[in-house]
Amino acid sequence: MADPRFHPRQKPIRLGDVVAKLGDELANPADADFSVTDVAALDIATGQDISFYHDAKYRPLLATTQAGAIFIRREDMGLAPAGCRLVIAKHSYKSFAQLAKMLYPPPDLVPGRAASAVIDATAKIGAGCRIEAGAVIEAGAEIGANCHIGANSVVGRNCVMGENCHIGANVTLSHAILGDRVRLLPGARIGQPGFGFLRDGAAFYPLMQLGRVLIGADVEIGANSTIDRGASGDTVIGEGSMLDNLCQIGHNVVLGRGCILSGQVGISGSTVVGDYVMMGGQAGLADHLTIGSQAKIAAKSGVMRDVVAGDTVAGIPAQPIREHFRQTAWLKKMSIKGER
Amino acid sequence: MADPRFHPRQKPIRLGDVVAKLGDELANPADADFSVTDVAALDIATGQDISFYHDAKYRPLLATTQAGAIFIRREDMGLAPAGCRLVIAKHSYKSFAQLAKMLYPPPDLVPGRAASAVIDATAKIGAGCRIEAGAVIEAGAEIGANCHIGANSVVGRNCVMGENCHIGANVTLSHAILGDRVRLLPGARIGQPGFGFLRDGAAFYPLMQLGRVLIGADVEIGANSTIDRGASGDTVIGEGSMLDNLCQIGHNVVLGRGCILSGQVGISGSTVVGDYVMMGGQAGLADHLTIGSQAKIAAKSGVMRDVVAGDTVAGIPAQPIREHFRQTAWLKKMSIKGER
Amino acid sequence: MADPRFHPRQKPIRLGDVVAKLGDELANPADADFSVTDVAALDIATGQDISFYHDAKYRPLLATTQAGAIFIRREDMGLAPAGCRLVIAKHSYKSFAQLAKMLYPPPDLVPGRAASAVIDATAKIGAGCRIEAGAVIEAGAEIGANCHIGANSVVGRNCVMGENCHIGANVTLSHAILGDRVRLLPGARIGQPGFGFLRDGAAFYPLMQLGRVLIGADVEIGANSTIDRGASGDTVIGEGSMLDNLCQIGHNVVLGRGCILSGQVGISGSTVVGDYVMMGGQAGLADHLTIGSQAKIAAKSGVMRDVVAGDTVAGIPAQPIREHFRQTAWLKKMSIKGER
Repeated sequence: MADPRFHPRQKPIRLGDVVAKLGDELANPADADFSVTDVAALDIATGQDISFYHDAKYRPLLATTQAGAIFIRREDMGLAPAGCRLVIAKHSYKSFAQLAKMLYPPPDLVPGRAASAVIDATAKIGAGCRIEAGAVIEAGAEIGANCHIGANSVVGRNCVMGENCHIGANVTLSHAILGDRVRLLPGARIGQPGFGFLRDGAAFYPLMQLGRVLIGADVEIGANSTIDRGASGDTVIGEGSMLDNLCQIGHNVVLGRGCILSGQVGISGSTVVGDYVMMGGQAGLADHLTIGSQAKIAAKSGVMRDVVAGDTVAGIPAQPIREHFRQTAWLKKMSIKGER
Repeated sequence: MADPRFHPRQKPIRLGDVVAKLGDELANPADADFSVTDVAALDIATGQDISFYHDAKYRPLLATTQAGAIFIRREDMGLAPAGCRLVIAKHSYKSFAQLAKMLYPPPDLVPGRAASAVIDATAKIGAGCRIEAGAVIEAGAEIGANCHIGANSVVGRNCVMGENCHIGANVTLSHAILGDRVRLLPGARIGQPGFGFLRDGAAFYPLMQLGRVLIGADVEIGANSTIDRGASGDTVIGEGSMLDNLCQIGHNVVLGRGCILSGQVGISGSTVVGDYVMMGGQAGLADHLTIGSQAKIAAKSGVMRDVVAGDTVAGIPAQPIREHFRQTAWLKKMSIKGER
Repeated sequence: MADPRFHPRQKPIRLGDVVAKLGDELANPADADFSVTDVAALDIATGQDISFYHDAKYRPLLATTQAGAIFIRREDMGLAPAGCRLVIAKHSYKSFAQLAKMLYPPPDLVPGRAASAVIDATAKIGAGCRIEAGAVIEAGAEIGANCHIGANSVVGRNCVMGENCHIGANVTLSHAILGDRVRLLPGARIGQPGFGFLRDGAAFYPLMQLGRVLIGADVEIGANSTIDRGASGDTVIGEGSMLDNLCQIGHNVVLGRGCILSGQVGISGSTVVGDYVMMGGQAGLADHLTIGSQAKIAAKSGVMRDVVAGDTVAGIPAQPIREHFRQTAWLKKMSIKGER
């Protein structure tokens, strides 16, 4: 059970109401009056909790779970112990997650503007927004309805934000246009000038950085991640992409839709990434590359060449993962032989 | 000598008072009236300074040092030049460090609340706290005695903090419970939602993140480091652990006591780390691993499997360090042969 | 063309005025009255734009460009299509960049102090400075003329700043002395205590960090980068060095002049780096190393030994880049043979 100081729980819900809301089905209609108090994993659930089963590796837990009810797929029903209340769900984990959100709904956004927020008179703030203490909204910014701007964050001049965005505390935003439902976690830095210099003899001169950052709908940017604006043209983060904490996105990078970047990933300037690309933690990509859609880049990889759509790469320099594994395995084997 | 603008120095101290306070001993009691002005390393110390000797690699410096006095272990006394004032200390470096703190004490915390700090009426602030300008303390937060909350930092709703904590400037804290004497350096982000998504066809839905961050006593978190709260259950940082700057700790990571994480280390979700584990800079750990106590993880390693207590690992993927060195040495040797 | 909301453009400029200002020369003096509206790359330039040519790899674009005029070196003039307006420039890219700055000048700094800025009465603020909302300037700080202090940034007690510095939003600065024209991008953390502990049995005690950070003129520090102050003595960033986002610089590091550090580079304590050293993204350097001037460190390298001036190193551990390439190529070749 979650700490009620941070995650207040709603009242228990009738199982009948649960299935009605989620479009699921009770294995035994007589279970409709069972009252679900909380959500919990199979191994820690009590008789008042509902759990879920979706993966064969948890099958041993099904035999011993104390859960009061279980979300389960129709084809897995036979695996559950007799007498267990079952909710038949097409996507049992999703149903569980949706119920978790019903029991622990994110706090309602109470509209308002903190007295200490500094909002320029020319900024347009949509209906239902909440602006926390110390936030700064500069001239000409346009913020859509129902946005939440965190304490001590700064929304720069003329930035545009869609509806239902959540900007965490201590965030900086400039030269940026955001779609709906964008979430920027605390300390994210969006829109600062990129890293570009002109060398003239021994000295470097910073180049003008005349672009923007465009962030699609439903994007999440992790805490303390940084996204530079384009040098000319834009840096783009496609709809539904998720970036973990401490990621670095260089100027003019174009990231497709639905990409997943784990923590501390870095992408150098002007690299273009397709849709649904996944990158493991601490992966790094050189500049001016093209990464095809649905490619997978292993954690810690150093990508120095283009990656074909659908490929999986690993290593420094990154190469197709089978090639990488072949080399590491061969080296291990031969170096042992070599010592004998 | 330190810049007095940043590190004001106390008046000189009698050597007799030094040994009395530290529980050390003068080799020659007649030195008690010697006045110590400053602390300095052997090679730069002047006749008014005290230095220390604790490691054979600095032995050449002993012969030439101009130091007015030296902290030294009893067994090393014979190494010092004749006529040098010696303070016999069990742990010479520690005595030196303690004297440095006496000469350059951290500034006293002057209690008070800046006029521009925004402190919710329901927050409980302990005696002796200092809240700097622009800091935001949200509803229900409980801050122990003698804490220092830096300028423009944000302490979220219902967070709990022990006594004598130091929160640097521009820090964000939410969903967190801190022990005594915790230090969060500037820009640290604690308690934001972790990186967890449910994939449903092409779309990703963020999962509820219903846990907390628990930080033990005497922990230090570096500048711009990020610690996500648990998804269900808690992310835990054990007592006395030290994290350098720009580290990333995923949701539900459990870090033991006395761990040392160098800069830019990343630990993925749900990995459990024992006590007194050391990690070199830029090391990365995959998710759901178990790292035994007193393990050592070399800088830049990519740890993809469990590590046994006391083991030292290196490489990507990380393996026992002797194995790693054998492979890199063999590769070097054979590739040279191969070219001939 | 840049988005005028973020990058307002000046009125068109006569080509004759352009060459007069830049000290360049028209191939055909009759072009002096041509009016330049915008700057653009060869492939997207229209008839109102000026472009530039400086590198043989763009030669195909010269044949098809629609650019109204082109900056070009005298020796390349013959490559341009007949009838194209040419501006003969010693350094064609630099001239282009300078004109871009004329057409899109950085906004004038309008002096002033936001009402919500908290400026200690003992701080000295030079003429022409602009202090944004929520910024905090602590006691004794000295800020030179024409500096810009971003919203919600914190300039610590007794810090010193030269003229024409730009401090982005949400920056933290303490124990630091900055030269002229230093730029700190949003979220940079300068001057916090370094990572140094004394181990005493099972416990660690933080050591006093009695130094400063010295930042030379014309330095740029990227967003969310961190630079720790010296433990005793100073951490130094040499004149004209450029650090990208999310870099970590340990205590007592000395970085020379004109160094270029790409994103997520980490340098451990007390390492000394010469002048004009270049480091690729995510490179890491161990502590107490010496890196010679004009060395190059490849992206993702793990440098564990000194690097000689002018050398290029790569790999983990880093070695001369030819050696590194020889080993990776040999491993690849042999592992394929080994499988057959």
